[in-house]
Amino acid sequence: MADASDRSNRFLRALRREPVDATPVWIMRQAGRYLPEYRATRERAGSFLKLAQTPELACEVTLQPIERFELDAAILFSDILTVPDAMGLGLHFVEGEGPKFERPLRGDADVAKLGVPDPETSLRYVTDAVRLVRRELRGRVPLIGFAGSPWTLACYMIEGEGSRDFARVKAFALDEPAGMHRLLDINARAVAACLSAQAAAGAQALMVFDSWGGMLAPVMFEEFSVRYLAQITSLLRNDVHARDVPLILFSKGANASLEGLADTGCAALGVDWTITLDEARRRVGGRTALQGNLDPATLLASLEVIRREVRRVLDDFGSHPGHVFNLGHGITPDVDPEHVAVLIDAVHREFCDHP
Amino acid sequence: MADASDRSNRFLRALRREPVDATPVWIMRQAGRYLPEYRATRERAGSFLKLAQTPELACEVTLQPIERFELDAAILFSDILTVPDAMGLGLHFVEGEGPKFERPLRGDADVAKLGVPDPETSLRYVTDAVRLVRRELRGRVPLIGFAGSPWTLACYMIEGEGSRDFARVKAFALDEPAGMHRLLDINARAVAACLSAQAAAGAQALMVFDSWGGMLAPVMFEEFSVRYLAQITSLLRNDVHARDVPLILFSKGANASLEGLADTGCAALGVDWTITLDEARRRVGGRTALQGNLDPATLLASLEVIRREVRRVLDDFGSHPGHVFNLGHGITPDVDPEHVAVLIDAVHREFCDHP
Repeated sequence: MADASDRSNRFLRALRREPVDATPVWIMRQAGRYLPEYRATRERAGSFLKLAQTPELACEVTLQPIERFELDAAILFSDILTVPDAMGLGLHFVEGEGPKFERPLRGDADVAKLGVPDPETSLRYVTDAVRLVRRELRGRVPLIGFAGSPWTLACYMIEGEGSRDFARVKAFALDEPAGMHRLLDINARAVAACLSAQAAAGAQALMVFDSWGGMLAPVMFEEFSVRYLAQITSLLRNDVHARDVPLILFSKGANASLEGLADTGCAALGVDWTITLDEARRRVGGRTALQGNLDPATLLASLEVIRREVRRVLDDFGSHPGHVFNLGHGITPDVDPEHVAVLIDAVHREFCDHP
Repeated sequence: MADASDRSNRFLRALRREPVDATPVWIMRQAGRYLPEYRATRERAGSFLKLAQTPELACEVTLQPIERFELDAAILFSDILTVPDAMGLGLHFVEGEGPKFERPLRGDADVAKLGVPDPETSLRYVTDAVRLVRRELRGRVPLIGFAGSPWTLACYMIEGEGSRDFARVKAFALDEPAGMHRLLDINARAVAACLSAQAAAGAQALMVFDSWGGMLAPVMFEEFSVRYLAQITSLLRNDVHARDVPLILFSKGANASLEGLADTGCAALGVDWTITLDEARRRVGGRTALQGNLDPATLLASLEVIRREVRRVLDDFGSHPGHVFNLGHGITPDVDPEHVAVLIDAVHREFCDHP
């Protein structure tokens, strides 16, 4: 098995498509409700927003899964909606209902009032948390910073909350494309600034979550999501803090457009479980690393099944460099932490040697 | 524009990939809450189940969109969960929460007790409605009968209700594949019997809705959904009532597996809007007709945008035989019926002539 120095290296090496001693693994929402220690800190914080916006508490829950499991990366505990909150939309969470904005955008006039917030002032709690986590991690594993995609942020900014089909934001994009493009451009610059600030504070990899891009038809996905993911990639490539920090893009459900996502020049693509990694790898032509893609529901099955399904995902990717093991979506609250330990162990053990 | 006899023929000709005078169009959930006349009948019925299980009322709402619009097909007003209800699971609808079963399946022992219901007794209200609708349609347009897929029915039968991720049924499939295969085999035979009975009663096309197959990883989709869609196709091909009735399969979100779906030998595949019809057509190699695939959210946009997006879908398919225009998912309750009229007119007018 790997020693400590391997654990500190594997994830970044895989993102660069370099050989590794074992496939690195981390888990989306690894600092989350399935962990009793997370639930305890969350209770102490009083609210989800308080937890995300207090650097000491965010640091504490970020480290919890790292202390418990042999994970190969930490990801900052935060929320993608902190950026539009910093733009003045008034984020709050309603228990059992999810995030809501007090002042959703109602049209072009609202968009015209928006500006790109300065992360070191209005998102200071994010960069403070990054600095704190880096110090507390003491080099054990790299830290991932993240943000939401311009399109996904726009979904919440216009709907004002989550939605089953995001029909209102789609209709806005169709009826007022110029206004939507103005909004997406502001969002892209705000997200790039937030990611750059996280890199400056010490984040060693960056990830953009495009949770709702996959709800768009391919032509609209290209126009309203990929275009702005490409803008972020380009801004970060020319950014003094972020230029050498690998960027991972994850558009859930957008498997029809993997080629376009790879064209952005990102280091890696997140992939959900509705496509095999073998097909995803062929589609991106080895131009990026891939991160994924076990169905999160697998963690509710028996330990034997978990081991078998881990092997299947590793076999699907095959013996090439450039695979970061992950779920295809966030871990759910009903998972037994013991099952997570078995998954991580299986990934490290079942590793196919690289050529 | 088309005369009455064209309207009566177009849909079935397109399913057989024969030349047509204009692309036929119908709309998933066309008999639904966006229509004031539907809401009036629904109120009169008292409950959704009463509406679906009273042939005269089901016939009335089935015909409403046909009277109002130049649609090229009617689809029976019914519900996919009537089949498991007939198997004894106790279907009921909770206002604002959707369908629930009183007696969901809790394991192998529950599966062992299930049998294939005789549609002419326990689903008599379905076949009675088919006969009534055929009489009232007087040959204006063909009537589509339908059922849920074995996998999708199993999702509700095991979860007991809808679910965001259907994690419980997936874990059951992973942990107890033999029990799941027993259930899916019973469901496939029950669905085939129900579809055969609808054909015998006069349905001129049949459709299977696999609403949740697309939540499965491709290997599991093949094992737990496609295999049983193929079983249904094969049973119907050898069925005296259904053998000449075209069968449409629609697995929402399963675009990674279109080839496998086409291999079942069905007449047509429904396609959601997250893939272009051009790519879908290339993937199935022209072996089936295609039905779809406008994003339902488009109907909330302006009339001008609706016309443009209709043209885009028609252009995506191109000038080949075998296209039935539809949305990529059901129409939503907030759509203005005038927008539907414009969509239908645009499909018929913007028609690209076949070679």
